[in-house]
Amino acid sequence: MSYTVEEIANGLGLPFEGAGDIKISGVAEPAEADVDHIALAMKPDFLADLGNSKARVAMVAAGTDWQSFGLQAVLLASRPRFALSGLSAALDQGAEYPKGISQLADIHPEAEIDGDVSIGPFSVVARGARIGSGSVLGPQVYVGCGTVIGPDALIHAGVRIAHNVTIGARFVAQIGAAIGGDGFSFVTPEPSGVEVARQTLGKVGSDHEQVWARIHSLGGVTIGDDVEIGANSSIDRGTVRDTRIGSGTKLDSLVQVGHNVVTGANCLLCAQAGVAGSTILGRNVVIGGQAGVSDNVTIGDNVILTGATKALSKVPAGRVMMGYPAVAMETHMEIYKSSRRLPRLFREVASLQKAISKLAGTE
Amino acid sequence: MSYTVEEIANGLGLPFEGAGDIKISGVAEPAEADVDHIALAMKPDFLADLGNSKARVAMVAAGTDWQSFGLQAVLLASRPRFALSGLSAALDQGAEYPKGISQLADIHPEAEIDGDVSIGPFSVVARGARIGSGSVLGPQVYVGCGTVIGPDALIHAGVRIAHNVTIGARFVAQIGAAIGGDGFSFVTPEPSGVEVARQTLGKVGSDHEQVWARIHSLGGVTIGDDVEIGANSSIDRGTVRDTRIGSGTKLDSLVQVGHNVVTGANCLLCAQAGVAGSTILGRNVVIGGQAGVSDNVTIGDNVILTGATKALSKVPAGRVMMGYPAVAMETHMEIYKSSRRLPRLFREVASLQKAISKLAGTE
Amino acid sequence: MSYTVEEIANGLGLPFEGAGDIKISGVAEPAEADVDHIALAMKPDFLADLGNSKARVAMVAAGTDWQSFGLQAVLLASRPRFALSGLSAALDQGAEYPKGISQLADIHPEAEIDGDVSIGPFSVVARGARIGSGSVLGPQVYVGCGTVIGPDALIHAGVRIAHNVTIGARFVAQIGAAIGGDGFSFVTPEPSGVEVARQTLGKVGSDHEQVWARIHSLGGVTIGDDVEIGANSSIDRGTVRDTRIGSGTKLDSLVQVGHNVVTGANCLLCAQAGVAGSTILGRNVVIGGQAGVSDNVTIGDNVILTGATKALSKVPAGRVMMGYPAVAMETHMEIYKSSRRLPRLFREVASLQKAISKLAGTE
Repeated sequence: MSYTVEEIANGLGLPFEGAGDIKISGVAEPAEADVDHIALAMKPDFLADLGNSKARVAMVAAGTDWQSFGLQAVLLASRPRFALSGLSAALDQGAEYPKGISQLADIHPEAEIDGDVSIGPFSVVARGARIGSGSVLGPQVYVGCGTVIGPDALIHAGVRIAHNVTIGARFVAQIGAAIGGDGFSFVTPEPSGVEVARQTLGKVGSDHEQVWARIHSLGGVTIGDDVEIGANSSIDRGTVRDTRIGSGTKLDSLVQVGHNVVTGANCLLCAQAGVAGSTILGRNVVIGGQAGVSDNVTIGDNVILTGATKALSKVPAGRVMMGYPAVAMETHMEIYKSSRRLPRLFREVASLQKAISKLAGTE
Repeated sequence: MSYTVEEIANGLGLPFEGAGDIKISGVAEPAEADVDHIALAMKPDFLADLGNSKARVAMVAAGTDWQSFGLQAVLLASRPRFALSGLSAALDQGAEYPKGISQLADIHPEAEIDGDVSIGPFSVVARGARIGSGSVLGPQVYVGCGTVIGPDALIHAGVRIAHNVTIGARFVAQIGAAIGGDGFSFVTPEPSGVEVARQTLGKVGSDHEQVWARIHSLGGVTIGDDVEIGANSSIDRGTVRDTRIGSGTKLDSLVQVGHNVVTGANCLLCAQAGVAGSTILGRNVVIGGQAGVSDNVTIGDNVILTGATKALSKVPAGRVMMGYPAVAMETHMEIYKSSRRLPRLFREVASLQKAISKLAGTE
Repeated sequence: MSYTVEEIANGLGLPFEGAGDIKISGVAEPAEADVDHIALAMKPDFLADLGNSKARVAMVAAGTDWQSFGLQAVLLASRPRFALSGLSAALDQGAEYPKGISQLADIHPEAEIDGDVSIGPFSVVARGARIGSGSVLGPQVYVGCGTVIGPDALIHAGVRIAHNVTIGARFVAQIGAAIGGDGFSFVTPEPSGVEVARQTLGKVGSDHEQVWARIHSLGGVTIGDDVEIGANSSIDRGTVRDTRIGSGTKLDSLVQVGHNVVTGANCLLCAQAGVAGSTILGRNVVIGGQAGVSDNVTIGDNVILTGATKALSKVPAGRVMMGYPAVAMETHMEIYKSSRRLPRLFREVASLQKAISKLAGTE
């Protein structure tokens, strides 16, 4: 794949200056760039390397004196990371899965495969499944009975999508993602230790044997448009109705979404985040890496849980939360600073006690 | 699958009232229920929706005035979640993997497959493995050399069970589960930084280069009856003897169980929980989501670690623990409340200091 | 596999005493050992069991009076765990994947397979991939386009290695590992809520809708020699340059390494640890189970993050860190002790206030 500077500029809607006819085949940091690369120097730190770079073309912030670095052309980016989105999409060669349906795939005769679909070797598409047009399934993928996948999906090697899952357009699943495992829903004939501890706020644990009976997951998973699921992540199916992932929501690697969860549109769940059963996330919620949300709580629109935060109860819309248990970020920082000063406080109180004894004694 | 109300009531051992001959094919929340569904209205919140529901039949708490909602029959549940267990089992159609052994599976001639077993396409059963009668293996499953699986297992798509794993009856493994990876056991020729830090309580980290040599995992994994392992979870094999999972224990998605761990019967390990190497869990232990237990510690019977709790040392039987490091739930709540009031405490101590200075000055 | 005591002693470079010609086929704890096992009794706790053990041979600490336990021979270990490394390697029969390239594997004609390579059934090696001599790929493995794997790799069942990944010698990947998923890198046209919160330290969350555009991962993953990746772990590919794992580094199960991360040599990342995007780890860093490091920070050489520690900012070389947020282990223990004494401190301050009121009133 190669494009001229002018083609790239037009494709991205960015202005360019200099020789628009230079052919470009990749991007790189200035120090590692080759002659047919665009050197990425949107951050001032990288400008210094441009002088020694082999690159003839760079992407720089508007207003940069690019000629002084010996460049022959530049793309001018006002919001550099956003510009990188378009540029990287143009130059990504991707996994290059072979075109067409592999003869080594096992497609059920009652599955429905739309036009222009590719399916890799050792993939299985079960009875009643439908794969939308333009979709690419890598090798070793499983699509269960009755599962419907919209157009233009990209499903990487080894992804498992169980039965009765419904997915919108432009779905992306990274290697090893697992969608539609049964929910973790077990019940005991008599109230269990967990139920007792919740009612008594921890005062009494159970002291008798529990045998767990499964509540089966009769629901599936419904996923909107433009959703992406990360490597080895897991989304569980619902108990009675479907677990739901809103359009535009993105999950990173090793994320867990429990049964019955509903996420709004355009949420980001970073690596190893977890959302427990029946919890509801609003629109545009960001859950940081290794952060978690308890079961059966509601997280409002635009909430941000910073990395490793554990939200154990409801969070109103628009809050930035931190800590375990999660509190407003400002509160957390105040508590944290106080904690650091605690040993000193103990010494101060001890010396106050002495001073008072002395005062009391002198009266 | 469809049953009459009377058949369901008898199957579940629950009383019913009204028209026992109505045919039922599913369950739903009242607002989403169809005419052949049982509407689930065991919680008072859902009763209000019954009036507008298409459902003719509901499951309700005993004593509910069901005729007033226009229903034709009801199942009466005294412990609703437990009743849902039986009801959902009766109506679950499951993954519907094709019956029989796929011609696209690779079964070693020296593997032993009992009667009435199904194995999906692209699954591999290695030399010396045994699959118990009535078991269902989905597609793309791996069962390693010498591994023995008891009767009536349900092993979903893409599960890997390595060599020399021994599993009891009625085993369930969700998509992508990984059983029998090597334990994470490495050693350096000289004491490593971790060993030094443990001995000195963190005062000295290592300042010389470490090269790690593997301690091989000669043990396997032994799993009891009625165990379930969640999607993309991992159980490591033992070093010298087997890692052991007690009967009736259930693991959620993305759970990690380290080498040599022993869990008692009927434990629950919620999503993303982790138990480090050589730790022992008693019977009926509940480990909340994202909670963890350090290596080489003992957790007593009936202990509950709430979500995100990190147990760094021994926990006696029957405790409900919270926090990082884990303390009794009551203690945690007291510490937490104190933390929230810390900034005020600092101000109070400062004003005490002033008051005393003043008092001391006036004498 | 069986060896004489003398062969094992010579192989491990350890002294032995007694009958060097006894044949050994395995190791076990004394209570479980059979007649052809070496009983492991390096820890004093295990010596007591030797009397009732079937084993004729034991590994014991130098100086042990082994004849008194009825043994016929002993291996003498000065550093027992290190000795166990060699002993376990000698006796490990491993997964016993069949030799040679399975006729059920799908090897692209333009892939390059060196001599003495084994590849299991339903594995896929894509166009332009190269597999080094002596490597063993289990069943259901995927190796993407242009990916290069060095000699003597051991890649277990169901591992996915995406395109353009470069791996050194003696690589080990446990079941279900996922290498080369796309980085979690998304950007909004206008500054997002996360960007605003970072700038304002959490005072303002976003209140307008975000649509996330992907920044494609044009980089791959580069992995050094002697690296091991645990079961169901994930390493993401880089944005512009490769994510890099240093030689000798070992990852446990369910670990996440984000895009652009660079780890030094000989790091250990324990189970469920996570390293967020663009972070740099020095040499010989140890990250405990469920511990995490934020994005874009630097962790110095020889740093140890104990289990569940969350490093949110730069850590200088040689530190042992604990807590969330991470602080020096000593500081953490001091803060923790203070926290436990907080409720008492509140009572003490209250009584000081009373005493001062009284003193002030008496003047």
